[in-house]
Amino acid sequence: MIEIYLIRHGLAGQFGDFADDSLRPLSEIGVKKTTKIAQRLKELGLQFDVILTSPYARSMETAIILQSIGLSETLETLDDLKPAGDIEFLIEQLQNIRERIQSVAIVGHEPDLSRLAAQLTFGQNCENLVLKKAGVVGLSAPVDGDLTGQCQLFWLTPPRLLLD
Amino acid sequence: MIEIYLIRHGLAGQFGDFADDSLRPLSEIGVKKTTKIAQRLKELGLQFDVILTSPYARSMETAIILQSIGLSETLETLDDLKPAGDIEFLIEQLQNIRERIQSVAIVGHEPDLSRLAAQLTFGQNCENLVLKKAGVVGLSAPVDGDLTGQCQLFWLTPPRLLLD
Repeated sequence: MIEIYLIRHGLAGQFGDFADDSLRPLSEIGVKKTTKIAQRLKELGLQFDVILTSPYARSMETAIILQSIGLSETLETLDDLKPAGDIEFLIEQLQNIRERIQSVAIVGHEPDLSRLAAQLTFGQNCENLVLKKAGVVGLSAPVDGDLTGQCQLFWLTPPRLLLD
Repeated sequence: MIEIYLIRHGLAGQFGDFADDSLRPLSEIGVKKTTKIAQRLKELGLQFDVILTSPYARSMETAIILQSIGLSETLETLDDLKPAGDIEFLIEQLQNIRERIQSVAIVGHEPDLSRLAAQLTFGQNCENLVLKKAGVVGLSAPVDGDLTGQCQLFWLTPPRLLLD
């Protein structure tokens, strides 16, 4: 089994304050909370072989915080982690990389990440998984075969559960 | 919305050491960890209007620990929370009591609790939710209508996330 962690970007600046939504950064409190959560994940012993992130600023910053805390040496952007990316393509990507990894973190947006979690766990769309900003989902996935509906959901936390 | 917390009993004595499985109690370490988790739930501000529990010893003890920490004044046993109880009946019970509560904890066994969570969240059976001993699931539920497939899963934690 490999582990897949889906991590929503932290609290960002106000929508509308930035002409280009892709450039909207984390807010000051978003940086602080995301850093605390990254530290807690490190304390819990997590280590990712790679962090895949949406190229949008608020996700990139979140991913860089995770990396800077020492959760992974490697960080890659993936266009389909932008809002409304292709979930089937993301699942294929996960299937392709799992031979060479044991643990991956995926940083992105809602409702995409909770839809991805539902596809991996239940094999269908579902709007009933709630992933708050800086929330984390943990899935364990088989090392071969289609991942759709074959992953086990063992962790879903709102940020307050990982903050003091 | 009301909140429904599903809490699996803590670590119990060895299966086979007790002629009647319903009398198998928590182990010493099970009591300690369950108490720590109950304290953490209290710190997080949780409060239940009622704790419903399987009458089996390991669940009753878990429920009593939750009650003794101050998470609820009221504790009731429910026969259908025994292993292999009737999930449809449990959902009906939840529908019946929700008018007079805001938050309920349900203490019981696996795989029943994760199946109940899957029914409430996805409206179907699913074996891909992992609820370890002393694990917690948090759901928010509408105040009227059928609960099946209508609840939102916002919390699923293995015990280590709630221990120091």
